[in-house]
Parts: sequence; structure tokens; C-alpha cells
Amino acid sequence: MKQSRLFTKTSKTVPADEVSKNAQLLIQAGFIHKEMAGVYAYMPLGLRVIENIKRIVREEMNGVGGQEVLMTTLQPKDIWEKTDRWSDAKVDNWFKTKLVNGTELGVGLTHEEPIVDAVSNYVSSYKDMPFAVYQIQNKFRNELRAKSGLLRGREFLMKDMYTFCRDQKQHEEEYEKIVAAYFKVYTRLGLGDITYRTYADGGIFTPRFSDEFQTLSEVGEDNIYVDEDKKIAINEEILTDENLAKLGLERKKLVQKKGVEVGNTFHLESKYTDALDLYYNDEKGEKKSIIMGCYGIGVSRLMGVIAELFADEKGLMWPASIAPFAVHLVSLGQDEQAEKIYADLSAAGVEVLFDDRDVSAGEKFAGSDLIGIPYRVVISKKSLEAGGVELKKRSEQANEIIAIKDLISLLKK
Amino acid sequence: MKQSRLFTKTSKTVPADEVSKNAQLLIQAGFIHKEMAGVYAYMPLGLRVIENIKRIVREEMNGVGGQEVLMTTLQPKDIWEKTDRWSDAKVDNWFKTKLVNGTELGVGLTHEEPIVDAVSNYVSSYKDMPFAVYQIQNKFRNELRAKSGLLRGREFLMKDMYTFCRDQKQHEEEYEKIVAAYFKVYTRLGLGDITYRTYADGGIFTPRFSDEFQTLSEVGEDNIYVDEDKKIAINEEILTDENLAKLGLERKKLVQKKGVEVGNTFHLESKYTDALDLYYNDEKGEKKSIIMGCYGIGVSRLMGVIAELFADEKGLMWPASIAPFAVHLVSLGQDEQAEKIYADLSAAGVEVLFDDRDVSAGEKFAGSDLIGIPYRVVISKKSLEAGGVELKKRSEQANEIIAIKDLISLLKK
Repeated sequence: MKQSRLFTKTSKTVPADEVSKNAQLLIQAGFIHKEMAGVYAYMPLGLRVIENIKRIVREEMNGVGGQEVLMTTLQPKDIWEKTDRWSDAKVDNWFKTKLVNGTELGVGLTHEEPIVDAVSNYVSSYKDMPFAVYQIQNKFRNELRAKSGLLRGREFLMKDMYTFCRDQKQHEEEYEKIVAAYFKVYTRLGLGDITYRTYADGGIFTPRFSDEFQTLSEVGEDNIYVDEDKKIAINEEILTDENLAKLGLERKKLVQKKGVEVGNTFHLESKYTDALDLYYNDEKGEKKSIIMGCYGIGVSRLMGVIAELFADEKGLMWPASIAPFAVHLVSLGQDEQAEKIYADLSAAGVEVLFDDRDVSAGEKFAGSDLIGIPYRVVISKKSLEAGGVELKKRSEQANEIIAIKDLISLLKK
Repeated sequence: MKQSRLFTKTSKTVPADEVSKNAQLLIQAGFIHKEMAGVYAYMPLGLRVIENIKRIVREEMNGVGGQEVLMTTLQPKDIWEKTDRWSDAKVDNWFKTKLVNGTELGVGLTHEEPIVDAVSNYVSSYKDMPFAVYQIQNKFRNELRAKSGLLRGREFLMKDMYTFCRDQKQHEEEYEKIVAAYFKVYTRLGLGDITYRTYADGGIFTPRFSDEFQTLSEVGEDNIYVDEDKKIAINEEILTDENLAKLGLERKKLVQKKGVEVGNTFHLESKYTDALDLYYNDEKGEKKSIIMGCYGIGVSRLMGVIAELFADEKGLMWPASIAPFAVHLVSLGQDEQAEKIYADLSAAGVEVLFDDRDVSAGEKFAGSDLIGIPYRVVISKKSLEAGGVELKKRSEQANEIIAIKDLISLLKK
């Protein structure tokens, strides 16, 4: 894409109403626009990152047999009353609205109930299980405070998956398969080494623990205790001697860290299926409960975490897997040759942001650092005299001169 | 995909609470799930159709230089008060909600105001224009009645584009480019021949007409008058002698038809930009108004229109461009050879739904007709004896025997 056509622009000014680094950088670089606290719109560069994260999540969820659906935001009261999650006294972060005739509706904050309700049209036999359903969709949570940019939103993008199994054994298999897929996602996003499976409170439906996926970060809201040898952690909220013994962890081996929860997986037992009257018939025709699991990944939160972690004083620094473009091509007065390189790289399938604007070199470089595309290619009188173009990784200081004829094979993956 | 793994099933029963054919068929075939009147969730087959429609719309909007963004559902009151579209007395189909602290919020029913607000961070000079921004996103409209399935939803998917131009001349160029792209979309969806550019009321901001894109259908809510020679129509709501003269149409040449509005394009003049204080400086540094256009396509409505129009008494009949799969492979007791064909077709990039279920031939055929995939390939003892597999188009009665070795080259596009 030609940058002269991109309607967003980078800004030199840190937005005054943001305290979180991710929101400051993403707004300055033109990736997001703040609608109100905790509610952000995605501008073209930001949407490209979101779509790349969604693609990775989608591929890994499909890889474990997940079937994608799209549930609704507007929610009827009745299905939530069956699980006692409608009243504001029970669930305190609903957004609610009303039909013209006065009927109260919920604005989707999670989707266990509607998923079970939808699935109940199709499932009746042991032969129908196991299966996994997921969606990537906006969630709405009426948070009291929202000052962490994309790390805690009132409206945010989430991947939520739900498994349906005939018994605990089948559930365990599905559950661990999905946990493994989660680590594939984090690894592809460049977070694999610093993201820990973390035991946490399992909720009221099960005596078991849930799993959180905590990415180490100083801005994290969670205190976790990491066992580096076992590559596992435990959330402070369940750090008791009894639980440590149960989990085979030793207190003295644990190191306290701050984490951002970038995913979670829950054992739901048959709480929702029973409450919504969804059962199955086993081989003998006997009515049995269906065991559910649920599995979340914060898609927009991941964008915030990565913006927060992969950045320096000059700006963002995207991992190649989710960068809005692969290459930032900067022309300094060499537009004709730059156009040719842009066309050749594009034809080779390389995604290029081409800075063809009529602004100073300093403004181009500052903007390029702020946007944080993995590779920068500069073509200038100086680079041509040196034998080609200047190639620099955003994450490194050094640059090198590359002959134009070698550029494509080098950047083509 | 193997049908034994697909969690949805077709149903022999017409849903009792639906009167519209599109909702009846789509629910019976397992494409959508009704959450409440006018609010439908998309199951795997339905989501595949939606994603195909989105892909076509996206390609054509990108083709005219559209830059994709994603705006928010939650809306702050202040920007809507500036255009006098906040009060329920002025706009009667808002869904509204509240923050914990009592602050009223809107649930996005359209996005002119937030788009102008976002764009105002970046636009200041005549050099910044023209440009076009679009999104594909849920809209929420508090309709009094919603009985037409996907044709009129309270929550529905829409593509909305907005252009920003420095003057009327630039606006006209952008506008006509987008109208042409709309016809490319309808043509690719198989609706080109029966969709008419239709003059309609332009709204309160302009003395000009707006354009509706009306697909002929008996279930349409609009009365339009078509001039077959000119391939143009006029909405009944503006059918006056004065307007006919203005448009160069003759009343006697017009034929009355019913239409479903599958898109619309509006001249907004500078109503929203002025109200939200977005201006630009021209070459002389003079402050000038920005001319906007807006352009909608009902993505989920298009799915409903196509379901309604392309169907027979046995079920749905998808155009190849948006079908959930290209081929429905049905095995009648020949699972081993069918598995091989499934693998070979998939490897060749053909999207196959493979009915590997252990159910009767009759159930498989009825389900296949209901789902409406363009090609059906049956492998049975009979077909093998006749020399291969039986190939049938969903839209035709005849079938033919094809040698297995010829199948891939025939189905691969």
C-alpha cells in the first residue's frame, strides 16, 4: 500500500488522556482510535494486525477440530435466568438494553448459555460427541475502570471455544489438545517463552483448578508464582500449602512475577448443559449429562500485550507473524526506482507499505520507527551510490546495503 | 469437511415460529440459529456463506481504493448530539445502554458520526483527499417487527463505506466508481441481472436523489418502477411527474415490481463533517467544507435474499461464488474409495463436504438437497458398476457418470 493513500498519520504527540503504553503507542502510530475509555476502533494498520492474530488463532483452533460459528451480541433473558446469570446482583458487568416493547435484552458478555442453547438443536446421542465450537467476536463488559488500553476493554475481541463431551475422560483429551494448541498460538505470536500455564481458581462449578495463560509483563494485573524448571505457574489467589501439595509444587522454588492473562481454559462440568436441559443418550439409551469446557483467548488484548512488550523508545516493533506489513519501503527522492521495487515486491507476494510521501527524511524515519514494521528498506541517492538499498531490521541498529536484484529473494519467505 | 464431524444437522421440520422462506430454509438446513426475532447466530455452514459474501464485498471495495477499518458498537452520546441524532424522538430505532456510573451509551446503528470523529485526527489538507473508508460490522436497530428472517434484522451484518472529498466534482467521481463496484458485487453473487439502480429519496441533507440497489423479489418490501430499456428504476416514494421529468423517465415505460434493497448510496453533502467540525484547508489556506458520501451493502440480508431466490421445494441452491462448499461428496457404502476422492479433491484445493455418515441414502440425498451445494458427487455400488461416480448439479435434474480419474480436473476451477 502506498502511504500517501493511507488516511491515518502518525503523531508526534503522546495522547494526553492515556496512561498505558500500548494505547499511547497504538494511537500515536495510527493503529487505533479511542472512542471512549476501554472502547477502541481499529484503523487500517490496526485492523491488519487484528486480522493476522485472528488468522493464527483460527488456524490453530481449526487444527484441533474446532468448528467456527458466530453468535449474537443481543441476548434474550430467559436462557441466562436458567443458569442464574441474568440478575445484576449475580453478574455485575452486564450491559443491558431494551426492545421497543420494553423487553430487556443483554449485550453479550460471554456465550456459554447461547452456545448450549444453539447446540441443543443438533445434539442428542453419544455419537454426536466430542466436538468443539468457537467464535471470534466482540464481548461487552461493563467495567468500572478501563485505563489499560487494549489490556482491559469494555468492548473487546475474544476467541471463545466450547467443547462438548460424553464423559470426563473424553473431556480431558479435548482439554489438553486445546491447551497444546494455545501454546502454538502464543509461540507463533512470539510470546511462547514468556507465557506460562498457570493454575488458578476453577470457579464454582468444579473443585478442580482452571488454567490461565499468563504472559510475563510488568503491567500485568495478576501476581503469579513461577516454577521455572517445570515451566508452570500458580496464581497468587490459590497459593496455599494445601494447593501447592496438590499440584506437586514447592514454595521455595517459586518466583513471583507479574502476568497478563492472555487466555484461560475452564472445566465447566455439566453446569450449563444440565441447567439448559441438554443431555444425551448413551449406547444403552440412558440419559446422561454432557461435560463442557470453555476456552478463551483475548484477541485484542494480545495486540495490546505485544504492543506493550515489543517496543522501544522510538515506537512499536511487531513480530513478523502479525505485522501490518512485512516491509516498509522508504523512498528518499528516488521515486521511480522505488515504484519499481514496490511493484516487484508486491508481485512476489511481499506485503509492502511504501512511503511515497513528499515529506522530510526525518519525518519518514520517525514514522517508520513508530509504526514498527519488521524490515525497513530505504532507497536514496546515498544508498544507490553504495550499491543498492539500505536494509534494516526494526529490532536492530545495524543496516546493510543490498543490491536491488537480491532484495526480492531475501525478503520473500 | 467430514459431515460426521459437523455438529449441525438438517431437520425435516419447518420451524413453527418463522414465516419467511429464507429463515425457514436456513434454519432447517442448519445454517443459522434463531436467538430471537430478527437476531440470528451463524452456524458453521452459514458462517462460510457469510465469509464468502464478505470476501467478495471486500475485494470490490479494496478495488476502488477502500481502506478497511473496524468501528465500535458502543457509542458515546456527545458525537451524536452534535448531529442531532441522539434523541429517541429524532432516531426511533436506537438500542441504548448505560455504563455502571449511569452514563448513557448507544449501541451502534450506523457509523457516520464515529467515522467523521476518527477521521478528524488525520485529515486537514486538500492533499488528504479523496479517500474511502469502510468496515464490515454488526449494526443494531430496534425494529418494532422483525419477521422476515435475514431480510430485516435487529442485529445484522453490514458493509458501510464513507468517502471524503474536497468538492462536489471529486465526490461525483468517487460516488460513481463505488456504484460500479456495487454492480460487480451483485454480479459475482449471481444477482446482477435482477438488481436495479433505483432512484430514491435523498434524505434531508441534499436536494438530490439517493440510489438504492433493488433486487427483484416477491418478498421485497419496496415498490419500484423499472425502465427495462434503461436498466434503471425509481422508488414509488418519489414517483412524481416532476421527478420523472428530472430523471428523463416516462411513466408509460415503467413496470411495477417488488424489490429488496440490497444496498444504498447517499450524497451527504457536508452535513456530518460540518456538524463535527471537520474542515480542510485548500491550496490557498482557506477553510473549506468536506463533502461526504455513504454506501451500504447488507451482507447478511444478501445471504437471506439469495436463500430466498435460489431455492426450490427441496431446499437451498447456492451460487458457486458463495456456496459453503463447492462439492457435496456422498458415499453410499463405498467409504474407502470415497475417502480417497475426498483426499484428492481436498489436495487439489476443492472445498468438499463429505457425507461419510452412517445413515440411509434417502436421508443423505434429502439433506444434500436442503443444504444446496452446487455439485453433488455420489459414489455407490451402482455408480461404480456404471463406470465411476454420479455427478449432478443442484440446479439441474440430470446427472452423469464420470470416471473417477476425470473428476478432479472437472471440478477444479
